[in-house]
Amino acid sequence: MNDQQLNIQPLTPDAFAPYGDVISAAEATEVININEGNTQRFDNLANLKISSGNGKPCLSIFRSRPLSLPITIYGMENHPLASQAFFPLSQRPYLVVVAPPGKLNETRIEAFLASPGQGVNYHPGTWHHYSLALEEESDFLVIDSQMKQSNCDEITLVTPRQLRL
Amino acid sequence: MNDQQLNIQPLTPDAFAPYGDVISAAEATEVININEGNTQRFDNLANLKISSGNGKPCLSIFRSRPLSLPITIYGMENHPLASQAFFPLSQRPYLVVVAPPGKLNETRIEAFLASPGQGVNYHPGTWHHYSLALEEESDFLVIDSQMKQSNCDEITLVTPRQLRL
Repeated sequence: MNDQQLNIQPLTPDAFAPYGDVISAAEATEVININEGNTQRFDNLANLKISSGNGKPCLSIFRSRPLSLPITIYGMENHPLASQAFFPLSQRPYLVVVAPPGKLNETRIEAFLASPGQGVNYHPGTWHHYSLALEEESDFLVIDSQMKQSNCDEITLVTPRQLRL
Repeated sequence: MNDQQLNIQPLTPDAFAPYGDVISAAEATEVININEGNTQRFDNLANLKISSGNGKPCLSIFRSRPLSLPITIYGMENHPLASQAFFPLSQRPYLVVVAPPGKLNETRIEAFLASPGQGVNYHPGTWHHYSLALEEESDFLVIDSQMKQSNCDEITLVTPRQLRL
């Protein structure tokens, strides 16, 4: 089994657009002043799809333990029926590993380095690795959907990928 | 015009139950292990009501400037058709001022001090003051609902309340 190395790119809205939204005040396009001028609302930061069908919007916190170095990923997951948003509650960077929807094409797996203050919202069907905290155990606020039917496909990679930090 | 002083209580799930949910991993009642044991999911932390009627779930960031001291509140607001959740992205405490749903009874206004790591989810109809950051400008992740019809009632208090910090 030969691992392949995966380069890590900075997370930007443009580069991440095929997979979902970057959730960030710094990169917001709609900003309004509310509350007598005491609050800026950075609005509509993600395209949430969490209430279609019988899905029920769900708010949770994920506490993620960093994987051992060198980080090697062996599988991906996919929620075909709903989006899933993660926002970091720590001031630490973390990794985001994704691939386009549809039949998984392993050659199209991409890895991004998210900065503190940047969240991600995976669109329905985007292949992604689970939360990849770095440095220390880190919390993420998560907004997804709970439903009775199955909404998680998992796949094991033919060729594991080692992340080149 | 005589201001009245309002005492500030610690924010706990029990004390806040008439108004909404306290969003906190430390106070979660459902915890599951996922992602090959690398993630703890503190699940269902808030009763989100953000997709009833034609409401569309919305994710935004509020950047709130602290009010001048002594903080005096002059009004309250109310979203009758949807919940509104706030989670602090700073490591600073903040204030939460609420009153029960229905016709506003000013004698029942209560104030809570939220700790870093504690969010709040106002249930539909709960009267609340807008975000009250302390110390410095602070960001909050907000999950609410956008809809065509009006979903914000505002009222001016007959007797403003001064918060006794």
